[in-house]
Amino acid sequence: MRIGIDMGGMSVKFGLVNQNNEIVDKMVIPTRLDVPPAEMIQDMIDTVSELLQKHELTTEDLEGIGLDSPGTVDDVNGVILYSNNYHWENVPIIRQMQEAFPVPMAIANDADAAALGEVKAGAAKGTQSAVLITLGTGVGGGVIQNGKIFHGSLKGGMELGHMVIQAGGELCTCGRKGCFETYSSATALLRMARNAAMKNPESVMNAMCQNDLENMNGIIPFEAAGQGDETALQVIDMYEEYLAIGIANMINIFRPEKVILGGGVSAQKENLTKPVQEKVNVMCFGGEHGEVAEIVTSKLGNDAGIIGAACLVQNDCD
Amino acid sequence: MRIGIDMGGMSVKFGLVNQNNEIVDKMVIPTRLDVPPAEMIQDMIDTVSELLQKHELTTEDLEGIGLDSPGTVDDVNGVILYSNNYHWENVPIIRQMQEAFPVPMAIANDADAAALGEVKAGAAKGTQSAVLITLGTGVGGGVIQNGKIFHGSLKGGMELGHMVIQAGGELCTCGRKGCFETYSSATALLRMARNAAMKNPESVMNAMCQNDLENMNGIIPFEAAGQGDETALQVIDMYEEYLAIGIANMINIFRPEKVILGGGVSAQKENLTKPVQEKVNVMCFGGEHGEVAEIVTSKLGNDAGIIGAACLVQNDCD
Repeated sequence: MRIGIDMGGMSVKFGLVNQNNEIVDKMVIPTRLDVPPAEMIQDMIDTVSELLQKHELTTEDLEGIGLDSPGTVDDVNGVILYSNNYHWENVPIIRQMQEAFPVPMAIANDADAAALGEVKAGAAKGTQSAVLITLGTGVGGGVIQNGKIFHGSLKGGMELGHMVIQAGGELCTCGRKGCFETYSSATALLRMARNAAMKNPESVMNAMCQNDLENMNGIIPFEAAGQGDETALQVIDMYEEYLAIGIANMINIFRPEKVILGGGVSAQKENLTKPVQEKVNVMCFGGEHGEVAEIVTSKLGNDAGIIGAACLVQNDCD
Repeated sequence: MRIGIDMGGMSVKFGLVNQNNEIVDKMVIPTRLDVPPAEMIQDMIDTVSELLQKHELTTEDLEGIGLDSPGTVDDVNGVILYSNNYHWENVPIIRQMQEAFPVPMAIANDADAAALGEVKAGAAKGTQSAVLITLGTGVGGGVIQNGKIFHGSLKGGMELGHMVIQAGGELCTCGRKGCFETYSSATALLRMARNAAMKNPESVMNAMCQNDLENMNGIIPFEAAGQGDETALQVIDMYEEYLAIGIANMINIFRPEKVILGGGVSAQKENLTKPVQEKVNVMCFGGEHGEVAEIVTSKLGNDAGIIGAACLVQNDCD
């Protein structure tokens, strides 16, 4: 048995994970941003103890504990270098946790862990390489190569959402203009849909929002497009075009076996992946001489991080 | 002793390379595109024999032969899958050459080999990771990670010049719009300089071209900018801005220790790298929490391919 811990901005999720990378049991505690890191980590230690006791397990029964965290981590020394969400800097989390549980531990960035989870037990199971792109408030992601998390060499992490695809374009939270994130996040889809609905009062998207564009969500443009609304069809096509550009950029670099879409927008499944795949197929370099990944949606959803974290300490990963 | 072979569109260069990755002797033969591949490969075999005889070496004295080729290669099976320059498809070049020289052989893409050469013996010597970006007719490049050529998983190669940085922008030879190549190649610099000189008759670039913009070259805009020509200063700043965007995109993904600029435009050296470094420093994700590579220009120039190719078969690479 292993434990996978997924540290989120709102809650920390704990999973007891078996040999087959299935979650046997789960616990969740709130993320406390108002206390020093050591106190929050103590909460986490207490929860692991509780989870073990609940299943009549001891530390000796544990193969290891893997955890993931948002932000930049030092996976060699087990330190959270910087987490914007947590406002943590240089927190040696693994050292503190290993004092309580002297078992193998490992840490990874949350998007990287989710990508690993999908490759080991989810949408890319059976492959050795995949790119996960999460379409949420921002665009995050992780790359798996040869069955392992792909890291750059120096510190700073793999930031695929902050690849500029539109020089001089929309301002990103990172300070650059035209990042992939500013065109392919759920936030970007809402912006595009609101702008288009405002300019086209006849669009059914306005009615769907009860004529208050504050009510726009990520489902409305897809539903309106499904009803043949011209404005929504244009919004969706534009959104998918940008998404395809970012995906093709990643394929031209990594040539993964699968591209996995996660996050809110990926709930559209084939409705999203089919048109995007068609666009990507003609965008990738080399035409027939290059192999293009299949684009799929995530299978593990919110459990990807827990399972991926647990896979960080699995010795006999298949 | 090893032999490194660099297959170019106009000529094929052969280098006898010693333990210290220095070229002891060099031979060059013309690339013959009008004959079947087997005939051209026989030319190459004859040249290797000649080079060995000249130095009173036999096949037994050879540690190995490495070669690089433009286009897509299958490095596992030693096959040139597709070369646009050579119009070759699925040529099992290593099998044919090993019949003549039964020694260890390896093959890589030419940009990848050049990157390896610069890491082993050039501008990034002493590092384990670098991104080489060649600014020539197009934009090519290679990535070295952990001292080795970084490959994607499926076939298709690492095509960093075909990362879109300006969606809907200039049409690229690859069919996409707004590729890095269409803004950062020498070709792109000439286009920007010609357009700007045409719109600004007072720019000294016009006089430097003898008032015929067909005479524009990659040096004129830098020289005019050096003289304080406002139009040229704007051209150079725009060119460097796009180049910085592409470099920052690569740093956000790979976090290499060095970024090496090669190709014609890199002859500007610090004149180019200094302002680009300043732009890149503020573009990379994570601010002070990320490490940003030093940008340098290539040191081996046209020899990078030969040396990199030879390093493909070096067992004790330092």
